[in-house]
Amino acid sequence: MIKYSILFTLAFVTLAGFVQVQKFNNKMESRFTTLTLSVDDLEKSYKFYHEGLGLPSKGIIGKEFEHGDVAFFDLKNGVILALFSRDNLAWDSQLKKGKPSSTEFSIGYNTRNKTEVDSIMAQAKSAGANIVKPAQKTFWGGYGGYFRDPDGHLWEIAFNPDLIPQE
Amino acid sequence: MIKYSILFTLAFVTLAGFVQVQKFNNKMESRFTTLTLSVDDLEKSYKFYHEGLGLPSKGIIGKEFEHGDVAFFDLKNGVILALFSRDNLAWDSQLKKGKPSSTEFSIGYNTRNKTEVDSIMAQAKSAGANIVKPAQKTFWGGYGGYFRDPDGHLWEIAFNPDLIPQE
Repeated sequence: MIKYSILFTLAFVTLAGFVQVQKFNNKMESRFTTLTLSVDDLEKSYKFYHEGLGLPSKGIIGKEFEHGDVAFFDLKNGVILALFSRDNLAWDSQLKKGKPSSTEFSIGYNTRNKTEVDSIMAQAKSAGANIVKPAQKTFWGGYGGYFRDPDGHLWEIAFNPDLIPQE
Repeated sequence: MIKYSILFTLAFVTLAGFVQVQKFNNKMESRFTTLTLSVDDLEKSYKFYHEGLGLPSKGIIGKEFEHGDVAFFDLKNGVILALFSRDNLAWDSQLKKGKPSSTEFSIGYNTRNKTEVDSIMAQAKSAGANIVKPAQKTFWGGYGGYFRDPDGHLWEIAFNPDLIPQE
């Protein structure tokens, strides 16, 4: 009887350890795959990012699904930028569609020098962006400005001498 | 006189070409550096991401600046997730602070299998996330669910057999 109870305990400990390892392996890792921006007019927003900002994409896909129209931009280092309608995001997430709100988040784009900040701000402006704050010295010792895309999403273009893109 | 005019033309063409190259080099590249999420209570949101979701970070920094408190999470593949107060983002961008709006964007996290979706949704729930849509079959043939962080920002945890993380 004692022999069986030892065996049972051993089996239990092994199983518990295995479950623990599984649980640990399945915890969130320090990454994400996609940043999806909600848009009101997918064609217009796609044009802004693809033609205006020059981000490569295969165009609007997913039209075979009633709520599936989406555009993907495969960015360097594997992150995907996606454009998806506000209506469809609300539908898919089962949330009530909220009003546009520009202070919910911002996308930071770091440059190699100050000139690059000015060029990209000018490129965004000519693509139809709303210049929220022209490039200027920042409070943290860098140089940068903010613009909003056609849907009010905020980008900060900045030169930070302590965080220069390596590539 | 003709000689000078030829020289002048040559110099002009060379300069124009140089400016063109510079302009081209300074165009936006297909990348971004930081995704900054606006938060109402930096300590609380930091705790959610650091302790709850387990994302590594050096903690809240930038306290030497009046509007500078920020937390950075250096994610894999070089993207930085940042937490910054709504008030400070509004102040820094010179925008009026908007109301929280959960359908502005979503962060997609792709898993290697369905079990991982369930585990991460459970992890988020136990960290205090609001489960918006429990994990289930998706319209595009995958499996996933949505949750919101303490500030209403939307995450989609999904298994897509056509887009499995490589690492």
